[in-house]
Amino acid sequence: MTFINDTSRSSRAQVRPLALENVKLSGFMSRYNDLMRTTTLISQYESLESTGRIDNFKRASGKIEGAFKGYFFNDSDVYKWIEAASYALIDNDDPELSEKLRSIITEIGDAQSAGSDGYLNTYFTFEKEAQRWTDFKNMHEFYCAGHLIHAAIANRRSTGEEELFNVALRLADHLVKTFNKEEREATTGHPELEMALVELYRETGNREYLHLATRLIDNRGKGLAGADQYRIDHIPFRQLQELTGHAVRMLYLCSGAADIFLETGDETLLAVLDRLWNDLVTKKMYITGGVGSRHAGEAFGEAYELPNRRAYSETCAAIANVFWNWRMYMISGDGKYLDVLERALYNGVLPGISLDGLKYFYVNPLEDRGTHKRKDWYDCACCPTNIIRVLTAFGGYMYGLTLDEVRVNLYEDSRALIPFRDGEISIVQKTGYPNDGNVELVVSTELDMQFSIMLRIPEWASEDFELQVDGIKQKLKAEKGFVRLTDNWKGKTSILLELPMNINMITSNPLVRENTDKIAIERGPLVYCAEEEDNEGFDVWTLSVPLKRGYDVRILEELPGEPAAITGKGIAYDLDDWRNALYKPLGVTRSKGKNVRFTLIPYYAWNNRENSAMCIWLHIH
Amino acid sequence: MTFINDTSRSSRAQVRPLALENVKLSGFMSRYNDLMRTTTLISQYESLESTGRIDNFKRASGKIEGAFKGYFFNDSDVYKWIEAASYALIDNDDPELSEKLRSIITEIGDAQSAGSDGYLNTYFTFEKEAQRWTDFKNMHEFYCAGHLIHAAIANRRSTGEEELFNVALRLADHLVKTFNKEEREATTGHPELEMALVELYRETGNREYLHLATRLIDNRGKGLAGADQYRIDHIPFRQLQELTGHAVRMLYLCSGAADIFLETGDETLLAVLDRLWNDLVTKKMYITGGVGSRHAGEAFGEAYELPNRRAYSETCAAIANVFWNWRMYMISGDGKYLDVLERALYNGVLPGISLDGLKYFYVNPLEDRGTHKRKDWYDCACCPTNIIRVLTAFGGYMYGLTLDEVRVNLYEDSRALIPFRDGEISIVQKTGYPNDGNVELVVSTELDMQFSIMLRIPEWASEDFELQVDGIKQKLKAEKGFVRLTDNWKGKTSILLELPMNINMITSNPLVRENTDKIAIERGPLVYCAEEEDNEGFDVWTLSVPLKRGYDVRILEELPGEPAAITGKGIAYDLDDWRNALYKPLGVTRSKGKNVRFTLIPYYAWNNRENSAMCIWLHIH
Repeated sequence: MTFINDTSRSSRAQVRPLALENVKLSGFMSRYNDLMRTTTLISQYESLESTGRIDNFKRASGKIEGAFKGYFFNDSDVYKWIEAASYALIDNDDPELSEKLRSIITEIGDAQSAGSDGYLNTYFTFEKEAQRWTDFKNMHEFYCAGHLIHAAIANRRSTGEEELFNVALRLADHLVKTFNKEEREATTGHPELEMALVELYRETGNREYLHLATRLIDNRGKGLAGADQYRIDHIPFRQLQELTGHAVRMLYLCSGAADIFLETGDETLLAVLDRLWNDLVTKKMYITGGVGSRHAGEAFGEAYELPNRRAYSETCAAIANVFWNWRMYMISGDGKYLDVLERALYNGVLPGISLDGLKYFYVNPLEDRGTHKRKDWYDCACCPTNIIRVLTAFGGYMYGLTLDEVRVNLYEDSRALIPFRDGEISIVQKTGYPNDGNVELVVSTELDMQFSIMLRIPEWASEDFELQVDGIKQKLKAEKGFVRLTDNWKGKTSILLELPMNINMITSNPLVRENTDKIAIERGPLVYCAEEEDNEGFDVWTLSVPLKRGYDVRILEELPGEPAAITGKGIAYDLDDWRNALYKPLGVTRSKGKNVRFTLIPYYAWNNRENSAMCIWLHIH
Repeated sequence: MTFINDTSRSSRAQVRPLALENVKLSGFMSRYNDLMRTTTLISQYESLESTGRIDNFKRASGKIEGAFKGYFFNDSDVYKWIEAASYALIDNDDPELSEKLRSIITEIGDAQSAGSDGYLNTYFTFEKEAQRWTDFKNMHEFYCAGHLIHAAIANRRSTGEEELFNVALRLADHLVKTFNKEEREATTGHPELEMALVELYRETGNREYLHLATRLIDNRGKGLAGADQYRIDHIPFRQLQELTGHAVRMLYLCSGAADIFLETGDETLLAVLDRLWNDLVTKKMYITGGVGSRHAGEAFGEAYELPNRRAYSETCAAIANVFWNWRMYMISGDGKYLDVLERALYNGVLPGISLDGLKYFYVNPLEDRGTHKRKDWYDCACCPTNIIRVLTAFGGYMYGLTLDEVRVNLYEDSRALIPFRDGEISIVQKTGYPNDGNVELVVSTELDMQFSIMLRIPEWASEDFELQVDGIKQKLKAEKGFVRLTDNWKGKTSILLELPMNINMITSNPLVRENTDKIAIERGPLVYCAEEEDNEGFDVWTLSVPLKRGYDVRILEELPGEPAAITGKGIAYDLDDWRNALYKPLGVTRSKGKNVRFTLIPYYAWNNRENSAMCIWLHIH
């Protein structure tokens, strides 16, 4: 069974996930799921081939000649594709994709077999063999190893096949043999392997993997990976007071530390994670759930440094934010982590891929003049291959289980068959979420016993959601992001949850100075933006929206997935007086603006037509 | 005579400057002038010595052994120091500084004499000799040569001595011999040499130097310097539509092209310069006159991309802005260029050096949380050594001359003795400018003829300046930034100019979205900021100042130079509700704020006490 993380035996996991096989999607996210299998995975495979990423393995096994192609970390893209393809093939018999997957796995195995010690990285072959494990700071050997392990676990869990898994085991054992000894200290220049080793421990029970993961964390700040802040190697992990350095590295590191805590219960790690998470949500996260304020170093900025136009907000960093918050949720059972996860997923990850599944954003600005363009592929393709493994895994995040609880973490039109105690529970969700807030859940089970069904109440709904069980209104308050329904559920029960899909106006901490006197509009879990394409005759950057209501919602049928747009009457500044000036004395030319009709679209749907200006934070009047 | 630029024979110079020797400062800028000679130049000399920059010359001449130290462009810092020291020694008999200057010049000459062909760059010596002139893109041989030529010209003009000048001539002739032939095309990876070669042409009359400068410009966009936008080598110079790439490179290039236009009258160059200058002032310049919006690449951003907190605004780029606008003024005689020059000088260059002359800023943010710190020196010391050559040269920018005009470009308590036609004119300025707007000019001359005295009227004063000549009010309008007084000035005349020192509230183009609903306060030519040090009990980032007047001015006696502060009653947001949140629904916690007394100081004076938060753009109510 394909668990995103198999925390069923993790001593500190309050919640464990449901396997991917147990959930069938049929709503908003199922469109992405299908798109991955039918379009994105195929197109990405072509890119992996045409850019030499697959040839690099053939070269390593001696099948072809020539030079290594591309970046030294390009193996990882192939591994991430395998992870996603493995998820996508669950319950979907797709001969073309299966064949591609099988053939890549063979190439990977052959590349490893060219050597005798289990080492595998196609960059460090032939003339570069002597340089293996000599540069933790700059080279991504650990990082690529981690992605191979993740791919292999996903492939084994979803197919039951051992071929790639055995390759990963050989590499992991090579790692253990090389680095699980006192005289050979190591840490990661780009964290990732920590998560992978813990998952491999979960898969095998071999404590050597957990031990190595722990050593990688314990060894930070000793200068083994450059001693710099960029790689978060400037101080020991436990001394970190704030999120800093390269955003993806930082949050992968937090995710790995959370995984280790889940297994070891080392409270000194949790203390750091709590501190850093507070730093995230009170000082360093975009409203989109994206992180990384600086282009220079793809890095976290200082507190409240959240530039909109020059946001870096790498798609991979939003994905890392999903990973980390997922683990914090498994640790605590607290819905506040799912709030961040959901925010990052819909508004930080989804904008990273076009609605047709063929183009990507690496950088995700919160406002733009129409110059930021999606690309088919990137030389550094970390984001495209990261998106696919998250979107194909969505079902695995939807439910959480404890001994006496079934938790609905995320809403999506879907059917789930949940193994529980010695029976099973079926939950059918009927909903247009995230565009609609009504969720009908039909719970069916033969289990004749009391247990709780817990429904997540997102923070934005906590004051005014409504709930009926078999037509009877329930007056319940959400606690830690969930309402608990405890009952004997034998038979069939209909639960109706109404999450209020209001137009919510969000303000920003005054220390984020560029957002003062502006608001962002959210509806449900979605952050909205104004894009020039929908707003003719004025500049969306000057749009001011009314504080008093008067907004309508309409479906944008011309866009794939038919996102729900928000419309209304606003004011746009007149720019005519400003064509030839940057600065003017106050009062001389203060524009009153003109009345306009505006349309806002979900941020995830932006830049799917012509390039045009866009902004999330809007003026108000 | 020490002309900053000797455009007296330049065919397209409408205005030529007065020599440094003809002006004696005694006001605001004289404090900096004295500081340079007594403190900054001495302290920088020690840094040049202790960092091996002087030893590099001794090594090149074989006097000492060891490796080259520091960056490959470190020679340029020594040259810039020489240029500044040469200016500083005019009319100031300073044996210590003179001795240092003489000894460095000897070392430079000896380093050149170690070879036979006039080449001089201490990095490309011994084992690196074979690499000379092989990498225009990355190495700064042309750049260092340019600074040597500037230093040599300044030294010759101010002392009459030929030693360093002959060194520069030998190098220049080596350049001409190497690159003024069709089969050896070249351009500069870091423009600077263009300006230097034109000035050397002005100094010698040798057209080979002008020819080479022209070739360097004409060769851009051919890939000789990397073909990238960063080095502005992606397209030919004449095809540039906007300011782009590395800010200092871009504006040095514009300055060089302006110099070439001054000599050749090539209108195709002026067309580019006009276009780029409009781009500067309507889309890409900070209110401080600083430029360069991006840390990544120290580069220009897109139109209206002017982040305050992450402004790069390198001190050198503001200096380049002074150079370029000075040349545009000489070309056109239009005061609008002096407005930018003055803005950049007081608000872009001056903040780059501490009030005690011992610390520097390389990067100049327009708002900060108290983390940005001045340094004693930088490994890449371009800014410190650039500041000194501008501040020691201030007097050379003060006056402009044409055949029948004496133009007062800049105001400063001072005495000038101006050679004019076959006589001379004395102008004594009595003024507290830039802190005070009253300027009394006493004009004395024996010349018995009609000519114009033109007084610059800064744009901020153009509507309400007042003017008296010998006690009689003059009703005149400024044209192209100047009022013209035409008369026979024989004898002694008193002119009283009153520039209105109002508190001016400046707004920003609405497309600079982070400045919307905010103002900047200017008084005279100075941009003001709120610094935490002067504002206890509230966070200056939340300060809102009143639109209606009610401001006072008081002198800050505790700071060197005694800047004029602005005080008033404002409102500061309450941040208590925001300690633990980045985003909140509107209305739930909108803070009313509390009444506070605020103090604003000139931006040039910030960060001269403890590090503390600062911002230029302020909320209003």
